[in-house]
Amino acid sequence: MVGLRERKKQRTRQALIEAALRLFEEKGFEETTLAEIAARAEVSTRTFFSYFVSKEDVVFYDSQSRLDLAVAALAARKPDESVTDLLLRIIDVSFDHVLVAQDLTFEDAALRARLVLTEPALQARALHLLFDSQLKLARALHEAFPERLTLVESAAAVGALIGAVKVAVIANLEQDHSLEEIIDTARRAADVALAGLRSLG
Amino acid sequence: MVGLRERKKQRTRQALIEAALRLFEEKGFEETTLAEIAARAEVSTRTFFSYFVSKEDVVFYDSQSRLDLAVAALAARKPDESVTDLLLRIIDVSFDHVLVAQDLTFEDAALRARLVLTEPALQARALHLLFDSQLKLARALHEAFPERLTLVESAAAVGALIGAVKVAVIANLEQDHSLEEIIDTARRAADVALAGLRSLG
Repeated sequence: MVGLRERKKQRTRQALIEAALRLFEEKGFEETTLAEIAARAEVSTRTFFSYFVSKEDVVFYDSQSRLDLAVAALAARKPDESVTDLLLRIIDVSFDHVLVAQDLTFEDAALRARLVLTEPALQARALHLLFDSQLKLARALHEAFPERLTLVESAAAVGALIGAVKVAVIANLEQDHSLEEIIDTARRAADVALAGLRSLG
Repeated sequence: MVGLRERKKQRTRQALIEAALRLFEEKGFEETTLAEIAARAEVSTRTFFSYFVSKEDVVFYDSQSRLDLAVAALAARKPDESVTDLLLRIIDVSFDHVLVAQDLTFEDAALRARLVLTEPALQARALHLLFDSQLKLARALHEAFPERLTLVESAAAVGALIGAVKVAVIANLEQDHSLEEIIDTARRAADVALAGLRSLG
């Protein structure tokens, strides 16, 4: 059970995220101040800082929790679970999380993707997060199968899976019109990585 | 035949790249000026600008030529060539290019990798190049096999291959001690992407 106090905190956090994305779209990322984001979300600037440390931080609000979720799933490998079964389970957990949480509308998710790909300050943070999180996942996968997978194989597996999904989702961003369609694209990309490029003919 | 004039230009370009990397290591990327890079390479600042438009540009000096090489290889698909054969050919062309060109020493290649992963201005440019070039390759692959591959499959294939190679090379950067060892790591990663994650067990 989530208590009243926790729900109120979640609502404030959500209001700050939505206010920030709206303002970034209207005024531009660099031109938006923390004070404006707080005002739009009807909280004080001081309150902003109890949720986020910076504007960049608002945009990447779910990166750490998504990484933690995947690392925890890798660490919880069952004794008889194969590499493929474990990867399939993590893909399901990650994609379900997006659909269940629905903490961004489709429009806000697309807006965020465009911002991350075009704003220098966000691009820099995105590159850091992209490689840092994949290296952590590669190490966790290697630790889940210390005998069966080398670190290079684990890193290649993580890079192939996340690379396939990211590039396919971005390539199809203008064709997809709902979170469900984005997840369909992501699933097809994950299938290509699982089956291997040789499966394409 | 490369003429004398062309060889002199290549030497100046190479001197600028090496001077820049040395200075970025000694003084830091932000603290290094264009004038200092030019002086170290024994050319004028004006000459710097006939080779590069910025400090960032020096670090990514080969991005465009490597992309052009791969796009040209995709466009030159032979009539009976399968998706797998074409991808294998492009992997060979790309890796051979690194070993033949040898335009960076192993130490400079490793230094550049560290700079790109840690300097905000370079991280931003790297993220842009990473996705922009992968989208261009995805479109070129889709055009090479318009009937056989969807855009999503093409993008997934490109993302899986490049993602596998990049993450594996970065994960193993401290274990690899020569350009040949880096290429070996890259080849093993490409094999994982080609065979698919299911091949890992």
